[in-house]
Amino acid sequence: MTQARTEGPISERVAARLAAIAAREPVLRAYAHLDPDAALAAARTLDASGDSGPLCGAVVAIKDIFDTADMPTGCGSPIHAGRRPGRDAAAVAAIRAAGGVIVGKSVTTEFAYMHPGPTTHPLNPAHTPGGSSSGSAASVAAGGADYATGTQTAGSIIRPAAFCGVVGFKPSRGLVSRSGLALFSETLDTIGGFARDVAGAARFIGAMAGRRDLVELTPAAAAPRIAVVRGAEWGPATPEAHAALEDAAGRFARAGAAVRNVDLPEACRGLLPVQQAVMAHEGAKALAWEVAAAWESLSAPLQALIEEGRGVDSRDHAAHMRRVVRAQAAMAGFFEDFDVVLTLSAPGEAPEGLASTGDSSFNRVWTLLGGPALTLPAGTGPRGLPLGVQVVGPIWRDAETAAVALWAEGVLAEG
Amino acid sequence: MTQARTEGPISERVAARLAAIAAREPVLRAYAHLDPDAALAAARTLDASGDSGPLCGAVVAIKDIFDTADMPTGCGSPIHAGRRPGRDAAAVAAIRAAGGVIVGKSVTTEFAYMHPGPTTHPLNPAHTPGGSSSGSAASVAAGGADYATGTQTAGSIIRPAAFCGVVGFKPSRGLVSRSGLALFSETLDTIGGFARDVAGAARFIGAMAGRRDLVELTPAAAAPRIAVVRGAEWGPATPEAHAALEDAAGRFARAGAAVRNVDLPEACRGLLPVQQAVMAHEGAKALAWEVAAAWESLSAPLQALIEEGRGVDSRDHAAHMRRVVRAQAAMAGFFEDFDVVLTLSAPGEAPEGLASTGDSSFNRVWTLLGGPALTLPAGTGPRGLPLGVQVVGPIWRDAETAAVALWAEGVLAEG
Repeated sequence: MTQARTEGPISERVAARLAAIAAREPVLRAYAHLDPDAALAAARTLDASGDSGPLCGAVVAIKDIFDTADMPTGCGSPIHAGRRPGRDAAAVAAIRAAGGVIVGKSVTTEFAYMHPGPTTHPLNPAHTPGGSSSGSAASVAAGGADYATGTQTAGSIIRPAAFCGVVGFKPSRGLVSRSGLALFSETLDTIGGFARDVAGAARFIGAMAGRRDLVELTPAAAAPRIAVVRGAEWGPATPEAHAALEDAAGRFARAGAAVRNVDLPEACRGLLPVQQAVMAHEGAKALAWEVAAAWESLSAPLQALIEEGRGVDSRDHAAHMRRVVRAQAAMAGFFEDFDVVLTLSAPGEAPEGLASTGDSSFNRVWTLLGGPALTLPAGTGPRGLPLGVQVVGPIWRDAETAAVALWAEGVLAEG
Repeated sequence: MTQARTEGPISERVAARLAAIAAREPVLRAYAHLDPDAALAAARTLDASGDSGPLCGAVVAIKDIFDTADMPTGCGSPIHAGRRPGRDAAAVAAIRAAGGVIVGKSVTTEFAYMHPGPTTHPLNPAHTPGGSSSGSAASVAAGGADYATGTQTAGSIIRPAAFCGVVGFKPSRGLVSRSGLALFSETLDTIGGFARDVAGAARFIGAMAGRRDLVELTPAAAAPRIAVVRGAEWGPATPEAHAALEDAAGRFARAGAAVRNVDLPEACRGLLPVQQAVMAHEGAKALAWEVAAAWESLSAPLQALIEEGRGVDSRDHAAHMRRVVRAQAAMAGFFEDFDVVLTLSAPGEAPEGLASTGDSSFNRVWTLLGGPALTLPAGTGPRGLPLGVQVVGPIWRDAETAAVALWAEGVLAEG
């Protein structure tokens, strides 16, 4: 590198972030790979060039299932430890092109499925930060990275964001190109990200997706029509989670939103086992090379999922996928009457212990349906850990949904 | 390798195929990389093990945009020449697990877009074999590989299969996992393949997808309900192409099918520019790393597409995607009255010259809609080159659609 060693405001800012990351890392363990030198070199280049972009000088963590040209991509698995794919995933290249400064690879569960990495919760290291995008959520919450990439197959963006008290944004399926991403479920895997506020999350997703309407998000012009969905069929949630949802719904109504308690259409009920079968069947297919080359190096839970996936009958998988198509059509009708759904992001606070990253039941059906979803911080629970509420919109209405979330964030901030 | 050098029937068969490939390769130029030693070693292992699988001992060519652990993956671009990703794409691992013997990497156009490779037509080297899966179609047609992988973003499986006189099968979008595939369009790219008959094509796709109902395909029990769609809005086709379609429709009717000439639903008209905009916008995003690292090494047509894609407004792309969702819903209704659509595979015979791989207008809308499509050989044109007819079914009705194609193949074979 013939890098000019010019210092400047971006270098100084990045250096401060690096110091913050280094201070927290011994306990937080958010990174599988950190490269402060590369980050500082990128910062100096930005200082010298005077280029600007929507992410100019922002510090970004990349979940360790995205290929990076200059760093290893380990996928949270010993099978891929140290693998260097030699090119950037499309989302990573887009982040660099927008001026993002990549600081390292954040910890993921094994292949973004369940087996956890070492990351702890930023507010209490005895608790999980959630997963699979564990390091991404934790680093943004701890004031390390400004932004971090994530992916969601079950609840891997919304849940850790809610647990850690940051904004998570899972956009429409396909909005961000998965070129260079280690795929797990062809149908479900969706790239999104973490930020400390809605405008930041929209800017970050917009930069990855080449979507100016997200980069330059403007609040919704009118108070939105909100369908409150409690999702009782997805399992029990804690009283504090329900209270946070009620409180948010009440505030939105008082701020002028048309708020109604509703159930989802019949075609969208009973979908949890469909999501599970699709994830298992497609995960087993996506990991065919790892299964053949290194079965013994997969964790027991992943081996069990692969066995489950192999047991899914061909005709059942096809029937599941047809059911998804019908459910999506039903949601298109549903959203004629509402701008967004307001629902739980998770059953409650981040659970204690690091062996599990928590329950994704309140996320799985939304991932299956494919529309945009954001989680907003919504107070804390009895253990002092964050709670979140989730805003879900119609597929391919990402800017409109984020605009409602921006409005909602403003209402919640009024206290 | 501690390979036993046992010879046996699989080794002999593979050796014969390798000889056939070698004899044709100087003119056909179907392969970017050939590895006869690896193929023979795999054949000997199969002979020694006595294992069997649905592809046991079959010789398979892999389009050079699928990652392979033991061969380079060049993507038809100097940027990736010699790149060794160190693992197999999921589809490649599934082929090996099913007993397929991989012989090499078949020529693709640059990143499976337009800029052609050197492959010639197996019946007349002055003509294109079609593309982007040029080497795959040509090698199967020339009696080299038994099966070959392909991908379709516009018309990259159905068109070259029709031009070369083999069966091409593009299954439902997402049926075969794209893990380890170089993505171009997140929405459109679909993995499929080439074989010399419908049962073989179904077996090959079924092996890649873990779908037993395709591996063990049985013919449709009843004569099908067929919608003949001429696709006049997609552009002009040659008289011989129309004659082949009329002839096939007539035979199917005489064999007992309910055949009706129909137009597609209103929501499915005018979609060619939508497919073009989605492909351009998503291709520009997927190649973000190549754009940043090696713009000058991209061909002029690809540079132009990327510029076009960057010019697609964010809101227009979202509107296009919503239109796709509506069109898919309309097709679900359409297929309540029909088992399949019968339509053209291409405007006619393979055109002369190697500078273009031909016109994909008769494929693009079907790729956008995402349902299964097969092309069947249907006689020859005035220049003695093959024609094809296309059978298209409802999304996630792959086995049912292939079963109709199997029935149709039998009817056409009756002469």
